[in-house]
Amino acid sequence: MSAVTIWTLDWVPERPRGFVRDLRLRWACEETGRAYAVRTVRFDDRATNHLDRQPFGQVPFLDDGEVKLFESGAGLLRLARTGDALMPADAAGAAETTQWTIAALNSIEMVTVPWWFLTVSGRPDAGMTGWMKARLDGIEAILEKRDWLAANRFTVADLLMADVLRVPEVRAFGDRPASEAYVARVTERPAFRKAYADQIAFYKAADEARAGQG
Amino acid sequence: MSAVTIWTLDWVPERPRGFVRDLRLRWACEETGRAYAVRTVRFDDRATNHLDRQPFGQVPFLDDGEVKLFESGAGLLRLARTGDALMPADAAGAAETTQWTIAALNSIEMVTVPWWFLTVSGRPDAGMTGWMKARLDGIEAILEKRDWLAANRFTVADLLMADVLRVPEVRAFGDRPASEAYVARVTERPAFRKAYADQIAFYKAADEARAGQG
Repeated sequence: MSAVTIWTLDWVPERPRGFVRDLRLRWACEETGRAYAVRTVRFDDRATNHLDRQPFGQVPFLDDGEVKLFESGAGLLRLARTGDALMPADAAGAAETTQWTIAALNSIEMVTVPWWFLTVSGRPDAGMTGWMKARLDGIEAILEKRDWLAANRFTVADLLMADVLRVPEVRAFGDRPASEAYVARVTERPAFRKAYADQIAFYKAADEARAGQG
Repeated sequence: MSAVTIWTLDWVPERPRGFVRDLRLRWACEETGRAYAVRTVRFDDRATNHLDRQPFGQVPFLDDGEVKLFESGAGLLRLARTGDALMPADAAGAAETTQWTIAALNSIEMVTVPWWFLTVSGRPDAGMTGWMKARLDGIEAILEKRDWLAANRFTVADLLMADVLRVPEVRAFGDRPASEAYVARVTERPAFRKAYADQIAFYKAADEARAGQG
């Protein structure tokens, strides 16, 4: 299979390290055994310097040798479809996996990310707390009954859902043991640990390169 | 192809009529020429009466005769993959269509829906206005350059993005002529008009059934 290129920011502050979404694609490459290279766009003028590749000025975006894609969710589905490591090959299993991938994006993250944004902006009571609680309780009820979201096995839906749920402020929002055990179970995977360590090392090297220029 | 069943609520108040998300699936069935039946869960205890089929108590959910799915985005991708009316058959075109479908769910709707929720809850300045403006400006810049999001043709990505953008409060948020023309272009499609009229008629009939019981 052709090599994958993942684009991300050339530097980020300390706080988002380990959470920049190139990690989702790195992780998927590790799970599927795909080789990948990392290329960068500049942090400093990130809102406008790559609008030709990502219309909202975000990262990551992906080139898998055949297609170029933005949206980490789309990149994940693309990488997942090139084998069965992240998605069952049968139609029903693939549909169920896609369903839970979309649920992570549109039922959970659609609430957790705006809630997080308002919270870290100093508006923790901006009106999303009840909605946040309802959605996290919904996923907790599912995870009390099973270890994995789809097809009775780890899939790309778990990769994404765990990445959504592992945000520290989200983990600290109430006590949900099944969700917490799920995040621990998924983030113990060697592929996650490798991708996470690689992102941390990548930005540490970026610090050193910046210091060398100073 | 086997018949599709779309589940929705048996009744809703006036305001959400024309916007209940079963419309997305009705519309996709109209575009693809799939026959479908509508079945219902009760509005009155909707938060808990169908958690076995939809873990967040929402509608719609779908049975296409082979798989049962919740998440309108997942249902759309499933319906789109059974032909080329909503998604090109080639891998690159399908990936680009999926990318923009995910963008509608995770880059636009992730902002517009919480913004809308906070606005109609009486918190229009809850802190999401700048984010809302940035994302709508991003999509406006794209639509200034082309008529359709993916593959130079109408796809399921347009169906979904237009459904996200046609919400009255979103349309009224600033003056974006390309987005407005896009919403008009997409919602002029006979398949949209049919699906919309059918949802309106469906809930009018539900009113009459309720009145008959009274």
